[in-house]
Amino acid sequence: MAQIQIGDSHTIKKTITAREVEIFADLVGDHNPLHLDEEFAAASRFGRRIAHGMIPAGLISAAIANGWPGAIYLSQTLQFRAPVYLDDTVSARVTVTKVRADKPIVTFSTECVNQHGVLLVEGEAVCLVSD
Amino acid sequence: MAQIQIGDSHTIKKTITAREVEIFADLVGDHNPLHLDEEFAAASRFGRRIAHGMIPAGLISAAIANGWPGAIYLSQTLQFRAPVYLDDTVSARVTVTKVRADKPIVTFSTECVNQHGVLLVEGEAVCLVSD
Repeated sequence: MAQIQIGDSHTIKKTITAREVEIFADLVGDHNPLHLDEEFAAASRFGRRIAHGMIPAGLISAAIANGWPGAIYLSQTLQFRAPVYLDDTVSARVTVTKVRADKPIVTFSTECVNQHGVLLVEGEAVCLVSD
Repeated sequence: MAQIQIGDSHTIKKTITAREVEIFADLVGDHNPLHLDEEFAAASRFGRRIAHGMIPAGLISAAIANGWPGAIYLSQTLQFRAPVYLDDTVSARVTVTKVRADKPIVTFSTECVNQHGVLLVEGEAVCLVSD
């Protein structure tokens, strides 16, 4: 644990295309037309298809897993601030904000932004980091 | 909004196999061996492969989307209480706990249990429900 410092961070970046949205829709069984039907989405408040919110959330979890292999999720909060449109490139960044002295438990601030720097998702994760 | 009542709920159920775990791993880029490598997982605290925590979280989001089509996610909290093992059947249940009088904003309690009734994930969602 001595090597984990407040401010340590890890970022992953992925472009979310129609393919990712269709795969996720089938995986969890969420075929909301806002995600899958161009015509329906065009008439919605968003004006075009958007990704499921749990896709950028999944990128946050991947950023933790890749930055701190073996980390076990204890909790995650997610505030969805703006939609992910198809073909947006999402950067998920996680940053250590607290390291407990008594247990190998780490708190991260977690956020996703798009290619324009717009904040998409923010929140906090707590993980057990040990092995 | 008049038709949404406190206590209304929706449940979806899905068996999470190696296939779902591999699809999710590729989707978000989380190839943690705890999820993918039987031998590695056997030597871990879990004793065998477990699913990514964001898979049951995705089922929660699908339960909201299927129960209240058109719902827009504002926030979700997730406490991960127990792992999802491969071939577990996860039931994601969401229940209305609050309906704002002034805005079409609904709060849900959200939980996933496995086929043995073990609580896997719990939390709360807030959604904009309108159209």
